[in-house]
Amino acid sequence: MSGLTVDSTARAQAAAVRSGEISAAELLELHLDRIEERNPELNAIVSLDAERARAAAAVADQAQASGEELGPLHGLPFAVKDTHALAGWRTTYGSPIFAESVADRDDLLVERIRHAGAVFVGKTNVPEFAAGSHTFNTVFGVTRNPVDPTRSAGGSSGGAACALASGMVPLAEGSDMGGSLRNPASFCGVVGMRPSLGRVPEWPLYNQWESTSVGGPMARNVGDLALLLSVIAGPDPRAPQALGDPGSSFAPPLHPASLAGLRVACSVDLSGALVVDHEVAAVVRASATRLSDAGAAVVETAPDLSLADDTFRTLRAWHFQAKLGRLLAEHPTLFKPSLEANIRAGESLTGADVARAYAQRTALSETMRLFFGDHDVLLLPTSQVPPFPVEQEFPETINGQEMPDYLAWMRSAYFITVTGCPAISIPAGRTSDGLPVGIQLVARHGADRRLLEVAAAVEALLASSTP
Amino acid sequence: MSGLTVDSTARAQAAAVRSGEISAAELLELHLDRIEERNPELNAIVSLDAERARAAAAVADQAQASGEELGPLHGLPFAVKDTHALAGWRTTYGSPIFAESVADRDDLLVERIRHAGAVFVGKTNVPEFAAGSHTFNTVFGVTRNPVDPTRSAGGSSGGAACALASGMVPLAEGSDMGGSLRNPASFCGVVGMRPSLGRVPEWPLYNQWESTSVGGPMARNVGDLALLLSVIAGPDPRAPQALGDPGSSFAPPLHPASLAGLRVACSVDLSGALVVDHEVAAVVRASATRLSDAGAAVVETAPDLSLADDTFRTLRAWHFQAKLGRLLAEHPTLFKPSLEANIRAGESLTGADVARAYAQRTALSETMRLFFGDHDVLLLPTSQVPPFPVEQEFPETINGQEMPDYLAWMRSAYFITVTGCPAISIPAGRTSDGLPVGIQLVARHGADRRLLEVAAAVEALLASSTP
Repeated sequence: MSGLTVDSTARAQAAAVRSGEISAAELLELHLDRIEERNPELNAIVSLDAERARAAAAVADQAQASGEELGPLHGLPFAVKDTHALAGWRTTYGSPIFAESVADRDDLLVERIRHAGAVFVGKTNVPEFAAGSHTFNTVFGVTRNPVDPTRSAGGSSGGAACALASGMVPLAEGSDMGGSLRNPASFCGVVGMRPSLGRVPEWPLYNQWESTSVGGPMARNVGDLALLLSVIAGPDPRAPQALGDPGSSFAPPLHPASLAGLRVACSVDLSGALVVDHEVAAVVRASATRLSDAGAAVVETAPDLSLADDTFRTLRAWHFQAKLGRLLAEHPTLFKPSLEANIRAGESLTGADVARAYAQRTALSETMRLFFGDHDVLLLPTSQVPPFPVEQEFPETINGQEMPDYLAWMRSAYFITVTGCPAISIPAGRTSDGLPVGIQLVARHGADRRLLEVAAAVEALLASSTP
Repeated sequence: MSGLTVDSTARAQAAAVRSGEISAAELLELHLDRIEERNPELNAIVSLDAERARAAAAVADQAQASGEELGPLHGLPFAVKDTHALAGWRTTYGSPIFAESVADRDDLLVERIRHAGAVFVGKTNVPEFAAGSHTFNTVFGVTRNPVDPTRSAGGSSGGAACALASGMVPLAEGSDMGGSLRNPASFCGVVGMRPSLGRVPEWPLYNQWESTSVGGPMARNVGDLALLLSVIAGPDPRAPQALGDPGSSFAPPLHPASLAGLRVACSVDLSGALVVDHEVAAVVRASATRLSDAGAAVVETAPDLSLADDTFRTLRAWHFQAKLGRLLAEHPTLFKPSLEANIRAGESLTGADVARAYAQRTALSETMRLFFGDHDVLLLPTSQVPPFPVEQEFPETINGQEMPDYLAWMRSAYFITVTGCPAISIPAGRTSDGLPVGIQLVARHGADRRLLEVAAAVEALLASSTP
């Protein structure tokens, strides 16, 4: 099998199945071995069902043997974020309220992954209702960082990032409201992308105009991420707000962008808006230097996102109240205190508060449009901190400075959320303790493929021997 | 000039200018003559500036003489709805607060019409801030129906529909929140289309996610309407929520749909939700009979839109408060009472009210998606009443039944608004008094071109001699 392992790229694994070099059943066993080895400690994959996965792999191999047309993910083991419904599988949302629920249909994005030929092995762990950037809940417990299990894997797509980084699965999907695809990617040393608002349609939604949370891909490299994006992106009649470009526009191999002359705006702290851990800041600065050395035109500047904090907090509280308010009333003791507080905050919002948030969001979107007239990408930290101790709910201090609440340390991610722009986190260095640190690249709304091409170039640059 | 008049189709007028059969200057004079003849009585066009129009027509003719590339509206006289900004022109929004304001830039849709080569002659009259379906304000007074000047021209694009119907302009644009492109078309005997949500991007917007009001075209026939839609539709970086199809997809001549087997759902009163004037109902029924006789599979059925009333009223009040609340506080005596009441209603909305409206809207959109799995188009009245006396603010009774407020008689239009689906009003008959009556055709979200093809076929059918 010419060296194929669970740590091979997803594209290599898919090609090996397609060529018959390895069967879906064999590839699954390799992954089940790795899951058996790492998952008991890390707790990334929940609701694991090896027998059901084996049956699905056998069906996949039969389909291939009988000459059926094969999807782009044919035979790849896959675990679905536990806040996304997977038909016939336990889907808990990380909440004790749904601890024993079984989904009766796929969410749209899961349906696409199924049609693309993936072999489902289980679900990936999440914080309660995906609220928060550390993955723990009372149903399944905490997910640990694969690089250092005393640390957080981040969240809310923490199980996904951990499973991916530890070789339990070759690709993963998730969702991102305040950084949930980017923060765990940064913490676990993989690639996570928040696509442009509208790029990955979701259905069902309680509110089609929900404009903060988006679905998106994670992978161990940018090329693999584009493969998954090609499967989950593109319009669908059930999601009239989606962007029109077909998913297939992400399928052709990426040509890394030329870095020579690339207009990079770099900001470690968004002009003072972020408290950033010194080691994280050093990784961002070093990346900027590497880019500059490679010929990019790097300037230190940032868009004015000062409206982002109020905008995000208002929309987040509004959405949680709308989605979960009734559940909280029915099950007042079954919510974690931080989420309950968010829902309660939503209860006191007026219509004018929501309108103000939308108006500010519109202004922020305009700010970014103008900013990207002068710059090709914005470079900033993905997370303001490296992975924090797994016992904490969130990092209480940064550089000795106290954080007022469990959102303040995620500004680097959620300030970008409200702009609607695509953003990708790629691994860029390590702390002195060896913990992964990601950098975040942001491009103008709609420029997802261009962003991937730039990210592929930056990934290659950072992987080359340091000068 | 081979019989070309101001009542010729817009396509014929554009072709005549392009071929040199008539100059833009000559075409303008024909229209200025008609304006001089009809406008003093009808009051459709406000802020008329014949000299500036003459200068623009001269520039258009020079451009053509020097071989410049010509836009699809080259040389066509045009008047812009007075709620849309036209750079350098008085733009009042029908409000005494802005009675003397001059716009410093074009709205996006106006910019597109300018680039397409139109020659601006003035603005079309509107109700205050486009609120309401009868066109009157304290700046310019009332717009009268061109068929019977004792009657309303409808609104809010009432000046537009009247100017078009009376031959003052060959095309017109407007906007539609609760029926503002459809109701005046029905009242004046022209064609008005509310495009799919996202089809015609708008900029600037105080809220990019504003999801009730849309820009759109009016014309004297469906083919002309498609010409204007081809100019104003299509994506723009300033409007990230827009649909992706280019405007050019509406440019090729329409092939009228085959009526044989066309699955038409017809409902005179949306299963009892609408009080409909007997004469309007008769026109809808007669149209359905003609369609059936032409081979269409007409069934009497309606989607369940019972959530639409609360949804529309909530979103409308929310938007008016957000857009105009501050202005009302600053100028408490300069609003008409009905609009002031709407803004005040918005002040008492909670965040949860707005969330409920969005959730209901999402459910309505889903209802329509499923409905259009079984039906190609929905046929219903455009307006529940024929044009009412110009002295009334709204029709106080229908068939002797009292209307509770100034929205209740517009349900036939705004129930469709909240679904996000495209809808077109085409002239379909007259009352015993000779007043125009339109019928409304609705298709699934995104199917704007298909709807136009069906509308073209229905238009041709109804224009043919009655059996």
